[in-house]
Amino acid sequence: MDKQERAGKMSMEWINRKNILIVGLGLIGGSYGMALKRLGYRVLAIDTDKDTIDYAMENGIIDSGSTEVSEEMLGEADAVIFALYPHVFVEWIKNYQQYFKSGIRITDVTGVKTAVVYEIQDILRDDIEFIASHPMAGKETSGVRYSDDRIFRDANFIVVPTERNTPEAVEWCYNMGRILGFRHISVLSPEEHDKMIGYVSQLTHCIAVSLMTCNDDENLVHYTGDSFRDLTRIARINEVMWSELFLDNKEELSGHIERFIEELKGIRDALDRGDAEYLKSKMRLSTERRAKFDKVRK
Amino acid sequence: MDKQERAGKMSMEWINRKNILIVGLGLIGGSYGMALKRLGYRVLAIDTDKDTIDYAMENGIIDSGSTEVSEEMLGEADAVIFALYPHVFVEWIKNYQQYFKSGIRITDVTGVKTAVVYEIQDILRDDIEFIASHPMAGKETSGVRYSDDRIFRDANFIVVPTERNTPEAVEWCYNMGRILGFRHISVLSPEEHDKMIGYVSQLTHCIAVSLMTCNDDENLVHYTGDSFRDLTRIARINEVMWSELFLDNKEELSGHIERFIEELKGIRDALDRGDAEYLKSKMRLSTERRAKFDKVRK
Repeated sequence: MDKQERAGKMSMEWINRKNILIVGLGLIGGSYGMALKRLGYRVLAIDTDKDTIDYAMENGIIDSGSTEVSEEMLGEADAVIFALYPHVFVEWIKNYQQYFKSGIRITDVTGVKTAVVYEIQDILRDDIEFIASHPMAGKETSGVRYSDDRIFRDANFIVVPTERNTPEAVEWCYNMGRILGFRHISVLSPEEHDKMIGYVSQLTHCIAVSLMTCNDDENLVHYTGDSFRDLTRIARINEVMWSELFLDNKEELSGHIERFIEELKGIRDALDRGDAEYLKSKMRLSTERRAKFDKVRK
Repeated sequence: MDKQERAGKMSMEWINRKNILIVGLGLIGGSYGMALKRLGYRVLAIDTDKDTIDYAMENGIIDSGSTEVSEEMLGEADAVIFALYPHVFVEWIKNYQQYFKSGIRITDVTGVKTAVVYEIQDILRDDIEFIASHPMAGKETSGVRYSDDRIFRDANFIVVPTERNTPEAVEWCYNMGRILGFRHISVLSPEEHDKMIGYVSQLTHCIAVSLMTCNDDENLVHYTGDSFRDLTRIARINEVMWSELFLDNKEELSGHIERFIEELKGIRDALDRGDAEYLKSKMRLSTERRAKFDKVRK
């Protein structure tokens, strides 16, 4: 498929699926709504919180909203984006999938995949396809009021297919990342995704939290500089969401923590034996890797 | 002393000490020169690198420079700022202190204090006072070409006196932090300083380096987001300087690493036993502390 054909196909797929239902209007759900409405889609939304729906309607984030699971709304949807906590997802599909039209596509925004994707695909009707994806974007704030589709601009979007997904659904989801404005779009298996996310996101959050909680001296706050501020920015954390994400990926995350601790112990042992060469070699390696990484990001 | 008297005293002290010698023109030495020259001081500098001196002269960072320890220049100095690596400091004082005028003041910019301050005060002539200080400012780059006195604006300046220092020297040093444009100026003992710096700066650098070196999967670079970027910004590190700073403060730093590892193990153990409540309570604590800390910085 050449570039033009691909673009043509992308438009057709997206023109044909014009009613998009978002389930869960938090920061990410709201930002999806904002972007999709701007692109001309009709955005429907379900959220249990009345203020959330009212706010989203008043601010043009969605076209239509409901605080209850509306049979009618579910029947209208050409595509569904599930933007709630992982543990709610399975129950939700079990309870409400009968109301969907045949042939629709479902995706999600969940930060862990292995624990969710296979189970959803197992229970889902045969005439509906679930293709998982993960928008690696966020803020230290949550809720629809902080919706902002600019958070996608410099972010990664990961499509996470299994062997049961069709190439068409992968393409559809890939293009969703494109039209939402993500900078990098990749395709990973659920296992690859969870290994990666355990390192680049979950481990970093564990580190930030531990750095903040390992020292009770409140005076130290007055002496913090850029480096401490950088390392703890993400220590302000939504504990309900993140504890669930951590536990849903606990084998991978636990392994990453273990390897990180071993590395840090290496530094401590080098300090104890006064081994400047060891310290320097680790610093050279980290400098080299971080420099390459700056290059990739540019 | 009221505010006006203090200001008066500050000016007199500073007017009377108008020839400032900077030994070592790196990023910090150069930035000091830039700020002091702008304030009307005559800035002299010694650095072994000819390019460094040439660059600083051509760009108006200093008034006069030498690549050798010039007897004449040392004799002119009313105050000396030592901005070289810690281990050079003691030897330098031993070799050259005889050329200084009586009554001058010496300070430094060294990132560790206990390992340096007492020894310098022990070997220094009785008619010269060394008052230690630490400008907690920097960049991921080094060298005089990156000099920039704006790095002081949002930074901490710590005066680090011992029992042997006079109140006048403490005041002089405190005011130096003020006129250089630092945002917060504090006074700490060498021991308090090293405990603090071990946590807010050295531990954070150890974490950033270890996070960068604990995983050899080069593909992961493509998936990093803001959080990983924030946590590893300082992983680009001057290995000569930092390995020396770490080793000069190894007891404190080793203790901080140990406490941090214990905290992180707490998270890993909670993952292993599926303890969501433990995870949430740590996240709540870190969120609360980080929020307070944002408040203090504003």
